[in-house]
Amino acid sequence: MLNKEDIQSQIIQAVETVKQTNPVAGSITNSVTINFVANAQLAVGGSAAMVYLPDEGEFLAKVSGAVYINVGTLLPVYEQTLPHAARVLHEMGKPWVLDPVAIGIGSLRTQLLRQFKEYKPAVIRGNASEIIALAGLWGLDGGSDVSKVRGVDSTDPVTAAKTAAVALARWTGGAVAVSGKTDLITDGAIIVLSYGGSDFMEIITGSGCSLGGVAAVYATAASPFVAALTATAVYNLAGLRAEKGADGPGSFQIQFLDELYKATAVDIANNPFDIEEGRL
Amino acid sequence: MLNKEDIQSQIIQAVETVKQTNPVAGSITNSVTINFVANAQLAVGGSAAMVYLPDEGEFLAKVSGAVYINVGTLLPVYEQTLPHAARVLHEMGKPWVLDPVAIGIGSLRTQLLRQFKEYKPAVIRGNASEIIALAGLWGLDGGSDVSKVRGVDSTDPVTAAKTAAVALARWTGGAVAVSGKTDLITDGAIIVLSYGGSDFMEIITGSGCSLGGVAAVYATAASPFVAALTATAVYNLAGLRAEKGADGPGSFQIQFLDELYKATAVDIANNPFDIEEGRL
Amino acid sequence: MLNKEDIQSQIIQAVETVKQTNPVAGSITNSVTINFVANAQLAVGGSAAMVYLPDEGEFLAKVSGAVYINVGTLLPVYEQTLPHAARVLHEMGKPWVLDPVAIGIGSLRTQLLRQFKEYKPAVIRGNASEIIALAGLWGLDGGSDVSKVRGVDSTDPVTAAKTAAVALARWTGGAVAVSGKTDLITDGAIIVLSYGGSDFMEIITGSGCSLGGVAAVYATAASPFVAALTATAVYNLAGLRAEKGADGPGSFQIQFLDELYKATAVDIANNPFDIEEGRL
Repeated sequence: MLNKEDIQSQIIQAVETVKQTNPVAGSITNSVTINFVANAQLAVGGSAAMVYLPDEGEFLAKVSGAVYINVGTLLPVYEQTLPHAARVLHEMGKPWVLDPVAIGIGSLRTQLLRQFKEYKPAVIRGNASEIIALAGLWGLDGGSDVSKVRGVDSTDPVTAAKTAAVALARWTGGAVAVSGKTDLITDGAIIVLSYGGSDFMEIITGSGCSLGGVAAVYATAASPFVAALTATAVYNLAGLRAEKGADGPGSFQIQFLDELYKATAVDIANNPFDIEEGRL
Repeated sequence: MLNKEDIQSQIIQAVETVKQTNPVAGSITNSVTINFVANAQLAVGGSAAMVYLPDEGEFLAKVSGAVYINVGTLLPVYEQTLPHAARVLHEMGKPWVLDPVAIGIGSLRTQLLRQFKEYKPAVIRGNASEIIALAGLWGLDGGSDVSKVRGVDSTDPVTAAKTAAVALARWTGGAVAVSGKTDLITDGAIIVLSYGGSDFMEIITGSGCSLGGVAAVYATAASPFVAALTATAVYNLAGLRAEKGADGPGSFQIQFLDELYKATAVDIANNPFDIEEGRL
Repeated sequence: MLNKEDIQSQIIQAVETVKQTNPVAGSITNSVTINFVANAQLAVGGSAAMVYLPDEGEFLAKVSGAVYINVGTLLPVYEQTLPHAARVLHEMGKPWVLDPVAIGIGSLRTQLLRQFKEYKPAVIRGNASEIIALAGLWGLDGGSDVSKVRGVDSTDPVTAAKTAAVALARWTGGAVAVSGKTDLITDGAIIVLSYGGSDFMEIITGSGCSLGGVAAVYATAASPFVAALTATAVYNLAGLRAEKGADGPGSFQIQFLDELYKATAVDIANNPFDIEEGRL
């Protein structure tokens, strides 16, 4: 079983591989935070590419080391693009990150998120309410119906999503990252809590989306679990550091990008985390 | 009739209610400034959500305290989404803010803006040329045809839009905010001039759009008139403050978001304004 | 033939005309960097407007002094909008700037870029791989097939695109700007190398796109060649200056916008460049 040192050594390897290889992690993501996702991916050493059309989604799947799919601001063409891209990724055995943002809003979103069950995202990232609702939609343990989701904000604490997160990770064979004050990451076997961050991350848009995009960057170079934890750790580290000099959400966001860029592999590996349960 | 102290006390109440309750104000808005709209709404204490699809627009109307609709970069699906969302909002008696940006460009924009007459937005925000053109499109006093609008920039001074603004406010029963060097806000009964701001607001994109989004945030907690004035006041205050340390439009924009976040209820209520006409 | 002083004097005139007349340069561009494009255009003194729909593209062509077309994140409606806008621009003899970003991805992108050959963009801006691939698509000298393009990043040095750039400029009768560590600008007769910039420009998204948008601003007031060189020069200057105080890609981007705004006509004209070949 993985111990703390194993995990830290894998984090270091993931960060260094990304910095050396500048891997492409394409995205199909919402228009609100698409720029922040791209800039965050670049800041940690990845390369970004975004598309909307079905055949371009397939191309993206083929040229990317991993892909980030965020269902934030759906357009009509996504009905074709998203399931097709997810299927291609699944068939190629290529990791992809799902951000089930605003699950419960609209019929297309529900239809797409149902379809994704079959295509097993390597990493699922969401807030507690989204993770619980996705487990519910997929008929897994710990899930509830989607009626508790209020737009894009969580109404549940991270710990409330533990059972759902584990169930989702076991279904996909990948990892789940539940974002909140303390973040929970699980591969279905072990659960890690990651600490740090800043309250400003709730007062800017896109801290969650861009974390998903960065998880896709690391998923090109590490297991889903290590990718999810590495992305969460660099976010917690950069958030904590950026808050120090920030005068408000504007300056926080700028310093946050700077800190993402400056964080070293060792810094990220040393960001505080606990292994809560060695084996469930 | 409202005097200055009444108005200031209502501004204070609006700001404090928003900071305490973090109300959702959803938007259907253009892709150029969508990120800035969301970040501005978050900075003043609101919660943001953006959608494109018709059934999601309906959902947004139902979960939001108020909604911001900006016709900036229209997509084909907006032909269904926008009138449907506006109708739902009108039928629920829920306030919504209309930004008739670039009125006069294209047939869909004209068609949508015509339809909105019936659905009576609680707040209409635009530059002088847009307000005059909208009054013209709706056949109201003070309007002209839309031929004078040059893309997204105003070619008329704020005072030229006074009659149009009053006529629009009387038609909707709400308020109109005309943005310019000095801003004019009216509910059709009284007219207020709000002072402050910065020339940098013309050199960044989205100061107008995000003002509309922030007006929607305050419309969840105040009358349309007070919401429009509160949003205008915090923009004038934050603009003036941000300009002090700004070295150009980049740093201005960041400091502007910081100042939106830092402005207190009393600061905002004390931002200079005059009641120009107590009763028209 | 143009000598260095002639060129510098035309740069000064272009920059000053833009600062005095605030010309509209509309864009149809990708959603990732659309905000940065608009803010960069405003920072140098232009006015921005963005649209998606076919009749709005035609309107944009008519009210703009020049138009920027970037095929980054294609939507289905672009199949109508882009060729129509390009045709209107061509028929009006109005300059437009083409950014063939991610050439080779998807069938619609290839179809559109093929159609553009006929509508002769005044300025083509891209990285070396994109310029080589576009020349290949148009059957011109120096071109290759598009298989070497990896998403949005160049895999070729700027000098490798010299023949393709000259061939494209001769075909259009306009200019080509190849972006890279050193930038190459040609009108098919002379070739100029422009120096400066910053490595941070590769670590933020949109430095290329926004350069294209700024080239459109200058194309309202100068020849395609001078517009392309002026835009490249102000980017190299602002990049170099912004890097000095930058702590990472976040602060770089903000200072870069500030420096775009602060650069004077003389500063821009004096940014280092060489005339590599007086006559090909």
